[in-house]
Amino acid sequence: MALLKTLENAATGTRMALDDLLDVLPYNEQGLIAAIAQDATSREVLMLGYMDRTAIERTLAEGQAVYFSRSRQTYWRKGETSGHTQTVKAMHFDCDGDALLLTVEQEGPACHTNRPTCFYLAVDGDEVVVSQTPEVAQ
Amino acid sequence: MALLKTLENAATGTRMALDDLLDVLPYNEQGLIAAIAQDATSREVLMLGYMDRTAIERTLAEGQAVYFSRSRQTYWRKGETSGHTQTVKAMHFDCDGDALLLTVEQEGPACHTNRPTCFYLAVDGDEVVVSQTPEVAQ
Repeated sequence: MALLKTLENAATGTRMALDDLLDVLPYNEQGLIAAIAQDATSREVLMLGYMDRTAIERTLAEGQAVYFSRSRQTYWRKGETSGHTQTVKAMHFDCDGDALLLTVEQEGPACHTNRPTCFYLAVDGDEVVVSQTPEVAQ
Repeated sequence: MALLKTLENAATGTRMALDDLLDVLPYNEQGLIAAIAQDATSREVLMLGYMDRTAIERTLAEGQAVYFSRSRQTYWRKGETSGHTQTVKAMHFDCDGDALLLTVEQEGPACHTNRPTCFYLAVDGDEVVVSQTPEVAQ
């Protein structure tokens, strides 16, 4: 964490080794940090997943988002079965290192329900409304 | 979770009581779900925080983002000391209910470092670069 604290006051353009940052991220008890995927074009927030260090490194090496499934306790390259892959254009870590933001080119719908994004349950007063329509498979 | 599964196949426009959804969210062992804040105008992803049910209800009642601080184990209305408040324009839950997306009007910089967003550590090959400059207080 000392490194992250130092970076808080570092000048714009300051560089460090990625490995040194990955060494000190405050991974949770399962070894994970949160990973947000945002569409590079529409700027929609598509989904939230989780990554451990290996998933982060695989995502960067493969150029496609690889998450760690907490329910299945395994890695999954987004789209490996659906074809709805996320090509990663940028990755940013946040100030305290417990979250990262992926800027992606999303192939097809991001949600496993075939809706464009996972955030389709809109609060409207004291109700929630289903606010997106699943895309019909081609 | 049965309710969330039912909603996966619900038609667009289907409504339900917010309380019923809040009853079944898969809060983690600390009673929290992830909360992403996105700027309504710039569409930048600003930060990731956490909320319990009370924080969600306070956010909706007060119209400003109220998070639960895991490090301090207390609620904090974003901006209560800095003035950098988040006025909430919309709230969406995701398909599996473990994350929500706030669409906000951000007053001033979102990050406690006075950078516009918390996601200022950009991956560049095998390095990380500090990619945003803190705003100077007026």
